Amino acid sequence: MKKLLDDPENAVVDSLTGFGAAHADLVAVHGLDGSGPVFVSRAGGAVAGKVGLVSGGGSGHEPLHAGFVGDGMLDAAVPGAVFTSPTPDQIVPALQAADTGAGVLAIVKNYTGDVLNFETAVELAQAEDVEVATVLVNDDVAVEDSLYTAGRRGVAGTVAVEKIAGAAAARGDDLAAVAAVAERVVANVRSMGVALAACTVPHVGKPSFDLGDDEIEIGIGIHGEPGRHRIPKAPAAQITRLLLEPVAADLGLAAGDRVLLFVNGMGGTPLSELYVVYGRARALLEARGVTVARSLVGNYVTSLEMQGASITVLRLDDELEQLWDAPVHTPALHW
Amino acid sequence: MKKLLDDPENAVVDSLTGFGAAHADLVAVHGLDGSGPVFVSRAGGAVAGKVGLVSGGGSGHEPLHAGFVGDGMLDAAVPGAVFTSPTPDQIVPALQAADTGAGVLAIVKNYTGDVLNFETAVELAQAEDVEVATVLVNDDVAVEDSLYTAGRRGVAGTVAVEKIAGAAAARGDDLAAVAAVAERVVANVRSMGVALAACTVPHVGKPSFDLGDDEIEIGIGIHGEPGRHRIPKAPAAQITRLLLEPVAADLGLAAGDRVLLFVNGMGGTPLSELYVVYGRARALLEARGVTVARSLVGNYVTSLEMQGASITVLRLDDELEQLWDAPVHTPALHW
Repeated sequence: MKKLLDDPENAVVDSLTGFGAAHADLVAVHGLDGSGPVFVSRAGGAVAGKVGLVSGGGSGHEPLHAGFVGDGMLDAAVPGAVFTSPTPDQIVPALQAADTGAGVLAIVKNYTGDVLNFETAVELAQAEDVEVATVLVNDDVAVEDSLYTAGRRGVAGTVAVEKIAGAAAARGDDLAAVAAVAERVVANVRSMGVALAACTVPHVGKPSFDLGDDEIEIGIGIHGEPGRHRIPKAPAAQITRLLLEPVAADLGLAAGDRVLLFVNGMGGTPLSELYVVYGRARALLEARGVTVARSLVGNYVTSLEMQGASITVLRLDDELEQLWDAPVHTPALHW
Repeated sequence: MKKLLDDPENAVVDSLTGFGAAHADLVAVHGLDGSGPVFVSRAGGAVAGKVGLVSGGGSGHEPLHAGFVGDGMLDAAVPGAVFTSPTPDQIVPALQAADTGAGVLAIVKNYTGDVLNFETAVELAQAEDVEVATVLVNDDVAVEDSLYTAGRRGVAGTVAVEKIAGAAAARGDDLAAVAAVAERVVANVRSMGVALAACTVPHVGKPSFDLGDDEIEIGIGIHGEPGRHRIPKAPAAQITRLLLEPVAADLGLAAGDRVLLFVNGMGGTPLSELYVVYGRARALLEARGVTVARSLVGNYVTSLEMQGASITVLRLDDELEQLWDAPVHTPALHW
């Protein structure tokens, strides 16, 4: 294992230390000195009267979630250990930090540990009079149930949920309305990914799974969980079809639909290749009579240095499109 | 070799096709159908009366340069084949597209091929009455002369040159003034990089160089050119010191200086690790009494999927800081 790290056991704290210093205008990172639980909140504190948004999950998917804390997106984020759910004692202060009396929406990727720990934290926060609604993100069409999941996994579609719910909160929607728009994104977003090479969890020190030199894994999870099947390495056009067709079928995409097309890198694949996949996916959508109205291409929900990519499609309506376009100012998304 | 590509010989065109479609609001990509030279310009055309900015170089360093075409930065970019200089017949129409009569600044990374081809193109454009000034970027302190260079190589500092000169042009500076501010950035910016693992040029199909399982290359070039020395793998704190100390020494950094600290990923290293390096570098600078006033962390000048990072330091003055902060709206930088 070769990584730009010091003590692998301390990788998350070391990374958050740099992250917090680089983006001190936007975020405050708590607990780095070991004095309390680690979580990330807005530098300026929560916005009075606004519904708060909190998300979290295992680390190793950067910039998700802490990179999306700021204006127009999250108010707090809770990073667990690498590929490990954050604990309730981390989540509770994040929920409290995000609350100014208008309540908090917790955005949770559908993994068993995340779901349980957020449930516990939400009960504890509610006992302290923080009103919390929860939305589960489960956009990965590759598998029903898996290594860490009952039901579908939450993957890159989470970015769309956080962005759009964040914009709804920023314009002054109440908690029920923000939760409803988040659920509408969940209902209209689907994803599927591919791995070309595995990643290595720092404190483990060896690859999370083995892939042969000529093998790729279709339907990979963002922790390297098994997908649908392994196939011999294939051209981008074929891989794109194998990812996009299940996404389109599950979404029931039809001619005349308008979508956001999001090609996400897993961390170790060059941007140039993501654009190749984007071009192929866009052509397939257009051939179905679907309009690609918005696009995002880059590394937003990663799996350490895994080589691969995922394709996410969000069916848009006028309101979702407006909320996607609304200003955002976070370390990782800014327009 | 496993990559998300179709025909490796067509990788650059396939990638630019996706790039152009994803960012059609910002850029126009010319020549993809083989009807003429390939270059990228602004979607809306050059801005009347503004000095034009053009850069270019081998592909494989995405988002450099095409990802920086847009408001407040470049007016055109010229992508060559992977790790290969663009040709004069590509550069000339880019210079012409960027010219509205106020002249054009060509920003050239110091590689022999780039320098020669830009020189030829500038002569041809001048013969067509386009006024062109050229600035050479040579920020890499690792080596004097190298595989592709007489003198120092131009690397990640190029982003600062393009951003700051772009802001000077956007505020209405004339060609001499834009060129002067670009030269001031070049005079005050230094970089050095490390590779943990090599990259593979698509049409070559095997890694550009070999590194042992426990070996890293200090002072690597962005094409995998040899650096200063190979050492056994080392903790991030030590690697950061080996990169930052030559940069600081060459720049003559002194207590009281204010700087931009830019940690750039080579393409295959996770963002989380770049933040670890950033944190270590910032601490070393602060220990010297240097203030880190601005920061940039991410994959901006890559080497395909190479694992590694570079550290760039730009000594700021009030004007350079204002120009860095000025609005920018491009595919890869936006604030």
